[in-house]
Amino acid sequence: MSNKNLDKIILGIDPGTQILGFGIVHVLGKSVRYVNMGVINLKKEKDHFVTLKAIMEQVTLLIEKYAPDELAIEAPFYGKNPQVMLKLGRAQGAAIAAALKKEIPIFEYAPRSVKLSVTGKGAASKEQVALMAQKILDICIPQQYLDATDALAIALCHHFSGEKISQKVSSCRSWEDFVKNNPNKVK
Amino acid sequence: MSNKNLDKIILGIDPGTQILGFGIVHVLGKSVRYVNMGVINLKKEKDHFVTLKAIMEQVTLLIEKYAPDELAIEAPFYGKNPQVMLKLGRAQGAAIAAALKKEIPIFEYAPRSVKLSVTGKGAASKEQVALMAQKILDICIPQQYLDATDALAIALCHHFSGEKISQKVSSCRSWEDFVKNNPNKVK
Repeated sequence: MSNKNLDKIILGIDPGTQILGFGIVHVLGKSVRYVNMGVINLKKEKDHFVTLKAIMEQVTLLIEKYAPDELAIEAPFYGKNPQVMLKLGRAQGAAIAAALKKEIPIFEYAPRSVKLSVTGKGAASKEQVALMAQKILDICIPQQYLDATDALAIALCHHFSGEKISQKVSSCRSWEDFVKNNPNKVK
Repeated sequence: MSNKNLDKIILGIDPGTQILGFGIVHVLGKSVRYVNMGVINLKKEKDHFVTLKAIMEQVTLLIEKYAPDELAIEAPFYGKNPQVMLKLGRAQGAAIAAALKKEIPIFEYAPRSVKLSVTGKGAASKEQVALMAQKILDICIPQQYLDATDALAIALCHHFSGEKISQKVSSCRSWEDFVKNNPNKVK
């Protein structure tokens, strides 16, 4: 199936209870362009429900501003304290609710799938994910925005999910390839 | 402080991923009256996000129908699988989002506090909670609605939270007292 007429906005979000990361890409035909990314700091909120309200409102604002066609979010992961997971789930639920309210389709990906999709390595670090996202989108991302690049990677993972990963990052299939090809970008 | 002019509706919800229980009470002065309760079956939904959407929509409908002044929900509990807790958290987050959208204050209570508040025993069974809620509100509750009576108990717990429990259930401070005083209601 040809995708030359494909034109859609993908919003990737990584909603934690302290930091909400977001990343937006525009898919046009076979190309994918960077639109925006950032973080919303929720640490100042002492009350859990005020935090959830902030998440819902901020995600609603992002949706109204960028009109995404699809939302991508990280799937459950394991090995954490159940109470932490419940609070994380509530934060995700508040973000998901904002998208559901706007009738936006939601897709979820395991953290390992996101890393594998963007870097070629399921156990890649946040820094490796950030650099590969930078390479793919041809942008410069300050290191302090690792929560945002995580969200950007989720959006990219969703974009790649319908294609063969190797076609998209053929010249940088792994972290080692990227370092070899971009010695000036690795400190 | 006198509470003779108190007039408020409390919505208690117990949002699981398969069954959403709800219970509504009307507090008028020192009295508390039963308004409604029920369950919303979510088992038929195969897709997780469709379930979350159903939760958000159903809680929104309850809010629009009963115009609660406050929402009470069960707090995190422990000892469960982290993945289950994350999904439960998402379900709670979707329900909470519906209330946040309507600017309704939310209160949360640990399951043990709910049981203690309604039955006088922190380790009471669902059946014991159902019977004590029945006694307090002077209604007859079919046994098959235990998920609904749990939600009703959450609403009652919130109502009692501002008062001394002993004043509200002075004649039935424990399950043993209730059995003793109501032999015909226990089979």
